[in-house]
Amino acid sequence: MKLYYAPGTCALACWIALKWAKADFEVQKADYASAEFKKVNPLAQVPALDIGGKRAMTQADAIFGYIVEKHPEANLGADDNILGRFEYAETMSFLTGDFHPAYWPFFGPQRYTVDHSETALDNVRKASFARIDRVMTYLDELIGDSEHVYRNRRTVADAYAFIMSRWSVRTPKSWKEYPNIARLFASMEKDADVQAVLRESAA
Amino acid sequence: MKLYYAPGTCALACWIALKWAKADFEVQKADYASAEFKKVNPLAQVPALDIGGKRAMTQADAIFGYIVEKHPEANLGADDNILGRFEYAETMSFLTGDFHPAYWPFFGPQRYTVDHSETALDNVRKASFARIDRVMTYLDELIGDSEHVYRNRRTVADAYAFIMSRWSVRTPKSWKEYPNIARLFASMEKDADVQAVLRESAA
Ligand SMILES: N[C@@H](CCC(=O)N[C@@H](CS)C(=O)NCC(=O)O)C(=O)O
Ligand SMILES: N[C@@H](CCC(=O)N[C@@H](CS)C(=O)NCC(=O)O)C(=O)O
Repeated sequence: MKLYYAPGTCALACWIALKWAKADFEVQKADYASAEFKKVNPLAQVPALDIGGKRAMTQADAIFGYIVEKHPEANLGADDNILGRFEYAETMSFLTGDFHPAYWPFFGPQRYTVDHSETALDNVRKASFARIDRVMTYLDELIGDSEHVYRNRRTVADAYAFIMSRWSVRTPKSWKEYPNIARLFASMEKDADVQAVLRESAA
Repeated sequence: MKLYYAPGTCALACWIALKWAKADFEVQKADYASAEFKKVNPLAQVPALDIGGKRAMTQADAIFGYIVEKHPEANLGADDNILGRFEYAETMSFLTGDFHPAYWPFFGPQRYTVDHSETALDNVRKASFARIDRVMTYLDELIGDSEHVYRNRRTVADAYAFIMSRWSVRTPKSWKEYPNIARLFASMEKDADVQAVLRESAA
């Protein structure tokens, strides 16, 4: 299978998950704004995962689910009971539906106002900081005094939260100011697979 | 169990799913902006589902997953194979992570710019129309020539897409202008459970 990614994006979290799962995969850098990539994903977003079907599959959370199910021995997903799955889905939905979108106005302010003057765009970026802090604070509480996002063990949620929280260094309040997220970072940054993905994706 | 909802919100989709599943449940109207509700969900959002645990569970997609698993006889979730689950998760993640957030700037423009003048807020609302059209168009293609969102049969994705697409009547381009979404609507509006939820939630 082949993962489409772009440097710095949430697709790197899928890449980390593929490494943790010891999956057999290749990666392809994508220019998500290109006409060519729109054929892969009509939403013009990474990640996308080609698993040899008629079309590539999309959506980070769905790609994580597939990796988890294909590689049960890696134990990167939910605990195997209904409450474990509920809590896992809650965490992943928060990351997909609240955390990730909080950063969009920061990266693409021109999508949030029809006034494209520098002042107007800056006013959008400034407003994003409160929404970003709201989700960073919630994530910090999710981690609590552990160093993992879900139930005190390594899952794909760690990779997902780690990659997206890195974006905060470009805002006034970096992840370093959230003590529990900082603990997650300390452990992720020691991980050889994580280091390899950060290095290879930037090359 | 008890579902926290607010009129018009995506929580109504969970309510429809609970009815379709013939679950045993009650509902409670929530003022999501209240200090009281923040104890239920620190993110101050509906839906939340109290299943008798230490805290209420949150996130629409996670709540759907729980309802689906608790009521297998209703067959409201993914087909039981890895590709079926991948496609289902892709659809639900799109609805949670792309579709839903596209409407936020329309409903809460003051969160997207620090300039709270009427003109600036209106410029945010105007920009939201293109992002809303983008996700409505993608949903329309997902439905294709069927009248369902996932694999030509009724699932929770129908309820989720239906309830959120209704928001479009307040924008310049309503769901009526998307032929496949309109077909989904025609079938949903005939559904007695859907009718009951729309009636009871507005009361
Ligand atoms: N709901 C999608 C969101 C994907 C997404 O927003 N990806 C970003 C990178 S992190 C992207 O490709 N952005 C391109 C753009 O916004 O133009 C998912 O969870 O996969
Ligand atoms: N990611 C959350 C989003 C929930 C959400 O945004 N709910 C809206 C209603 S549809 C809400 O409660 N909004 C309150 C507010 O934004 O203040 C989920 O999927 O449940």
